[in-house]
Amino acid sequence: MGILTLLTDFGTRDYYVAAVKGVILAAAPGATLVDISHEVAPGNLAETSFLLQAAAPCFPTGTLHLAIVDPGVGSTRRLLVVEAAGCRFLAPDNGLLTPWLDRGRSWAIDRPDLYRESPGATFHGRDRFAPVAATILNGQPLDSLGSPVTDALRLPANRPRQDRSSTTGSVVHIDRFGNLVTDIPWTWLGRTGAVAIQVKAEWSGARQVTHYAELEEGEVGILCGSLGTVELSLRGRSLAAFWGVEAGVAVRLGPKSEDSVACSS
Amino acid sequence: MGILTLLTDFGTRDYYVAAVKGVILAAAPGATLVDISHEVAPGNLAETSFLLQAAAPCFPTGTLHLAIVDPGVGSTRRLLVVEAAGCRFLAPDNGLLTPWLDRGRSWAIDRPDLYRESPGATFHGRDRFAPVAATILNGQPLDSLGSPVTDALRLPANRPRQDRSSTTGSVVHIDRFGNLVTDIPWTWLGRTGAVAIQVKAEWSGARQVTHYAELEEGEVGILCGSLGTVELSLRGRSLAAFWGVEAGVAVRLGPKSEDSVACSS
Amino acid sequence: MGILTLLTDFGTRDYYVAAVKGVILAAAPGATLVDISHEVAPGNLAETSFLLQAAAPCFPTGTLHLAIVDPGVGSTRRLLVVEAAGCRFLAPDNGLLTPWLDRGRSWAIDRPDLYRESPGATFHGRDRFAPVAATILNGQPLDSLGSPVTDALRLPANRPRQDRSSTTGSVVHIDRFGNLVTDIPWTWLGRTGAVAIQVKAEWSGARQVTHYAELEEGEVGILCGSLGTVELSLRGRSLAAFWGVEAGVAVRLGPKSEDSVACSS
Repeated sequence: MGILTLLTDFGTRDYYVAAVKGVILAAAPGATLVDISHEVAPGNLAETSFLLQAAAPCFPTGTLHLAIVDPGVGSTRRLLVVEAAGCRFLAPDNGLLTPWLDRGRSWAIDRPDLYRESPGATFHGRDRFAPVAATILNGQPLDSLGSPVTDALRLPANRPRQDRSSTTGSVVHIDRFGNLVTDIPWTWLGRTGAVAIQVKAEWSGARQVTHYAELEEGEVGILCGSLGTVELSLRGRSLAAFWGVEAGVAVRLGPKSEDSVACSS
Repeated sequence: MGILTLLTDFGTRDYYVAAVKGVILAAAPGATLVDISHEVAPGNLAETSFLLQAAAPCFPTGTLHLAIVDPGVGSTRRLLVVEAAGCRFLAPDNGLLTPWLDRGRSWAIDRPDLYRESPGATFHGRDRFAPVAATILNGQPLDSLGSPVTDALRLPANRPRQDRSSTTGSVVHIDRFGNLVTDIPWTWLGRTGAVAIQVKAEWSGARQVTHYAELEEGEVGILCGSLGTVELSLRGRSLAAFWGVEAGVAVRLGPKSEDSVACSS
Repeated sequence: MGILTLLTDFGTRDYYVAAVKGVILAAAPGATLVDISHEVAPGNLAETSFLLQAAAPCFPTGTLHLAIVDPGVGSTRRLLVVEAAGCRFLAPDNGLLTPWLDRGRSWAIDRPDLYRESPGATFHGRDRFAPVAATILNGQPLDSLGSPVTDALRLPANRPRQDRSSTTGSVVHIDRFGNLVTDIPWTWLGRTGAVAIQVKAEWSGARQVTHYAELEEGEVGILCGSLGTVELSLRGRSLAAFWGVEAGVAVRLGPKSEDSVACSS
């Protein structure tokens, strides 16, 4: 019996996560269930997609990843399963699975015979995703679950870019420590000891380091994060809180100069 | 080896949940442990009972549900086990298990030989409930754990009611999204496209929909929730925060009229 | 396949905990993973050590406890494994494992062949601790993982003490309920019904009780907590919030007298 990961915006105060797990364990006894997170901001598809993309490569081949952030629950939006990178991904067809669409095959689930009878249409996690997930865990081939699709919804791409004098990207995640995780590949950065960072019109200087403890208390550092992208960190406290930034904000990196630092005052 | 669910007000910052799980796994190796929630407000019996009632039907026959919200820990309050609906429910005898008392058999646990030696009397979750739970998971018949009881404590019943012009019930839960879950059966609602809702003396209008995405941004909807009861929702944000209501507040539904809407000024 | 507990300051919003679990399950399929907590305050070694010390004795012999609170990640700090009290403890060599250092044997891990290739040096939980943990779960002897060490780092000891007229200790933990858990052994307390407590220069009176429900609403009690030490509690709300204290604050207990109580006004 395989591994199922679970990523939702259900929070941990409600009965929602347990209901999904109960339905899965009832139909696929012995499955190993692993929570990725249930603290996704309600309905935040970009955050969900980021977290899944970061966690999934750590799991063994054959893992089933179930992501339920589903503001369209009960509407005509489809249930999607994607086979890619040796794993299966099950989620609403709302863009969550964008990173895997071009790397594998996708099916729109069409198996009302599997769904739970339900008084309402607000909890497809329990009533549709969970029984479909159990069926997959039980070894049913994905082909038997629905029809192949090539028109799955995609989240808007927002790729980092480089020009001669600077590199521009986004803060794609703010972690619990208040570190800013960007989408700028670390390899784009020149071998320089200091970098100028522009966030919300302000320029700041930052020292390039390999790990957090190299920084002085209160110093801003730029380092290669755990996903191979540029990460910004403030020693001893949250940089996100200090700068007042949220995920999604643009970041521009340039060589450190007197000018750029002067601008940050 | 069976499934055990765990529902407490212990939070997730402390070592309390892990201590309970460690004792259970030491005595019942291989048990599958599933968290329902540990974020119940400290000592809130109504919330605990609601969450357990909502989650339990999703789990397979034979599941043991352990609920520890126990403000009377260390006093003479009894440990109760109930067999009902194909499952077992283990909890303090403080009313938590009210929904199952009339649907099965109850025993007051009396097995000091099973309890852990403990320096104090503040953590029966670890010292009494956990070893008793492991014993049940190991297949010990409930009859051997204590004496049958018929006088288990009950939470006060607070049933919804209908009269000719309106329906009255309570908000029994506010979920992470700020939706108001009531105890009013959805089937009581007439087939009407619009409903007037009275909460805290104010009347508001709401549109009857089948799912959240039907609502316009900022619109209040009334829909059949995941438990088959009336649920109130505000598109895009928390209705509970918007109206400033908490679980337990009364809700009155009536046909939408100029009058009722006028009252809501 | 054994049990692994996991204690970190990663929080539950990020993908960090899942990444560690995925790597472990990929290399040690069938391991039972139990969370102690992921809500340790960022970098708080004393809190981590307290929680691990409180939870570990509940787990069966052979359990592997993995604690990752690691502000020095990426620096030259070592990875440490300790065998003590029938269990294994794996953590950064930063003092976390102080309570077990004198009770067993320690090794500094030196197995770069096990580590995951990683773009950066910020996530040794995923890249080093997880594969080492899986190797231990798979039965590899600790001797094969590195060299014995006797110079592991220790947290500063801060022991409670007694003199003729009073007992002094520290609040080592504040739990979700706002109870103050101290390091003062309960057996040090005389058999007296009332105690004076000094916290932050203020003296207060408290009644000695055996369990919370003995207290009146709003009354402060002193009782034997779940670890056999003195615990202070306020009935119906958080004593920590009421007194405005945090973990680490000193506590002095004395016999209750008119004088001491007079001081508390």
